Amino acid sequence: MATVDRWLLPDGIEEVLPPQAARIEVARRQVLDLFQRWGYEFVVTPHIEYLESLLTGAGRDLDLRTFKVTDPLSGRQMGFRADITPQVARIDAHTLRRAGPNRLCYAGSVVHAQPRALTTSRSPIQLGAELYGDASPASDVEVISLLVETLELALVPDVHLDLGHVGIYRGLARAAGLSGEVEQQLFDALQRKAMDEIAELTEALPVSPGRMLRALAELCGGREVLDLAQACLVEAPDEVHAALDELMAIADALSLRYPELPLYFDLGELRGYHYHTGVVFAAFVPGVGQSIAQGGRYDDIGADFGRARPATGFSTDLKTLVGLGQMQLGDCPAGIWAPDNHDMALWRVVQQLRAEGARVVQALPGQALSEAPEAGCDRQLLFSDGRWQVAPLAP
Amino acid sequence: MATVDRWLLPDGIEEVLPPQAARIEVARRQVLDLFQRWGYEFVVTPHIEYLESLLTGAGRDLDLRTFKVTDPLSGRQMGFRADITPQVARIDAHTLRRAGPNRLCYAGSVVHAQPRALTTSRSPIQLGAELYGDASPASDVEVISLLVETLELALVPDVHLDLGHVGIYRGLARAAGLSGEVEQQLFDALQRKAMDEIAELTEALPVSPGRMLRALAELCGGREVLDLAQACLVEAPDEVHAALDELMAIADALSLRYPELPLYFDLGELRGYHYHTGVVFAAFVPGVGQSIAQGGRYDDIGADFGRARPATGFSTDLKTLVGLGQMQLGDCPAGIWAPDNHDMALWRVVQQLRAEGARVVQALPGQALSEAPEAGCDRQLLFSDGRWQVAPLAP
Repeated sequence: MATVDRWLLPDGIEEVLPPQAARIEVARRQVLDLFQRWGYEFVVTPHIEYLESLLTGAGRDLDLRTFKVTDPLSGRQMGFRADITPQVARIDAHTLRRAGPNRLCYAGSVVHAQPRALTTSRSPIQLGAELYGDASPASDVEVISLLVETLELALVPDVHLDLGHVGIYRGLARAAGLSGEVEQQLFDALQRKAMDEIAELTEALPVSPGRMLRALAELCGGREVLDLAQACLVEAPDEVHAALDELMAIADALSLRYPELPLYFDLGELRGYHYHTGVVFAAFVPGVGQSIAQGGRYDDIGADFGRARPATGFSTDLKTLVGLGQMQLGDCPAGIWAPDNHDMALWRVVQQLRAEGARVVQALPGQALSEAPEAGCDRQLLFSDGRWQVAPLAP
Repeated sequence: MATVDRWLLPDGIEEVLPPQAARIEVARRQVLDLFQRWGYEFVVTPHIEYLESLLTGAGRDLDLRTFKVTDPLSGRQMGFRADITPQVARIDAHTLRRAGPNRLCYAGSVVHAQPRALTTSRSPIQLGAELYGDASPASDVEVISLLVETLELALVPDVHLDLGHVGIYRGLARAAGLSGEVEQQLFDALQRKAMDEIAELTEALPVSPGRMLRALAELCGGREVLDLAQACLVEAPDEVHAALDELMAIADALSLRYPELPLYFDLGELRGYHYHTGVVFAAFVPGVGQSIAQGGRYDDIGADFGRARPATGFSTDLKTLVGLGQMQLGDCPAGIWAPDNHDMALWRVVQQLRAEGARVVQALPGQALSEAPEAGCDRQLLFSDGRWQVAPLAP
């Protein structure tokens, strides 16, 4: 690599410079403090662990997104975390082993070998909250509320929320007796709303299940979709109705809490279908093709660690929040310039000012006062009346 | 892997659980705030980048400690950062390109393929500060002072500081006309204070340089070592005296600022000899074999990115600081337990309390008040006199 190229970063891998890095740090603290006020405890998961632990319960997507290396100490395959959620599930299931509900949160970088989409970062800073041990919709309402509060804190404008429930498709597919392969093909076709393929894949099915599966692709829109679904899916098995009732209960609770928040429903869209088990949700804003935050219920994940626990949670990317949000993130406070002088009396004043929270930048040999503004200083320390005092830059 | 093993972490890779994770987060914020008050600007470097950028200017040690993968997008070799210092040097040299002195700081996980020592973590959280653009000892004094303040902030007891200067050995080796290979062998022998080997490697040298190189191994101890060195090395070339003078100026300035801090000097110990160019330093505490923080001057590192800049800085591990330190890290504040009730009046009170900074945990279906203490709550929300009020847990 030529000298001139050595500073290049790989596609989708970013560094964050001042002052943006300071803004991201402020936002990080505010979001983690919000999580704490909701009772979520912070955990720090490792950046690397055995591949099998990292991919447990997760889909093939995560496998493709995960960088793999061999551990020189054990000879076993390890992966760099591409998602923190399975790690936190491991901590709940195995390490903490609490009897009652357990609320955990995290914030940390992940790396993706393949980006989620062509223009997506491969190095997001994943932030999230997870609630374990309770299977009721109350938990889903809590984590979705916390997601809404997180987006509100970041002042992300024009958010809308998409809600779905994988139990609806799963119940219909089971009732129709779909085999694994056809279920997967139909699932793919539903995601793309490819009506021709959906018609073809369901034409051999009995009339009622076929009609209901085809209806899914069109069951998307506002709150009226849920009433329409109850009518369309009247012949569906009980588990489908239970899923619809759950979705409705969650939607109603959210509408009471956030009457201004637009809710959309898409009963055919099944984000994270392979590991989700109940409600799924995602937040969108106009002009951004990908969801900016997402989550759902994934009750089975702990089983792979020897302890099945109900679980629901969400995650988002801190860099996206700061980029889209309109937070007034206080930039670094204006500082005080200290001259290049090794007088111990000056040192004591500088240290006192720092202890009181001021930012003090000491000049290095040869630096003139004229360099103070570039160092973000709007005042200086001057010796007058027998002591060091804070004074304006221009007297 | 059996289910029972899936939760195992690789050797040297740790996760951090509550409440320790919250303590680490508090310490992280306090240290970064300290850095900011000293004028150091925060940067976030990527966890992965092209290997050549990552290893630029660094020694073979870092190469061995770095996990490597192939980028599926570019086909080029990438590495996971095992040290953040070269990344920050790249940012100073190439991305920011400021004319004057530049102060940068960082905090983030690194991963090591091989541990530094048998019992060392392979997943430290590296914290550090770097000062670019000034070659004078004033910069070294500043970064060493900031290191001392960081250890004081973390209340690490019984710290002592080791100081050395690679210019002394380098100047003597050059004056003795040592070839690269012998210079390296002698360097290794000096690190191990292997007197026999040192004698053997220097016996063919002219009398004076040989004597001076042998003296290095014994030039370790308190401040008196520097005076002794001036006497022992009187015949050394000018660059050796310049290095000694620099070391003395730095030591004197530190002693004025921190009269209680024990300073030790070891002119034969040359931590990071391959990339350091001036003063080197490390902080130790009794009972810990490895240094707990370390740094030095490395003026040449930017050259590989097309812009040589003077540079000095230090780094430490946040987990070590919290582990050894005696910070009174406020554990999570005691919370308020809200009943499992979807009354909107309760929701508004809960949200108000959270907005005021309180931690409020809402019960999930089936949870009894008796579970409140386990959730860290010492008060509850009760409906009385027609409104929701905060009350003690036991009435």
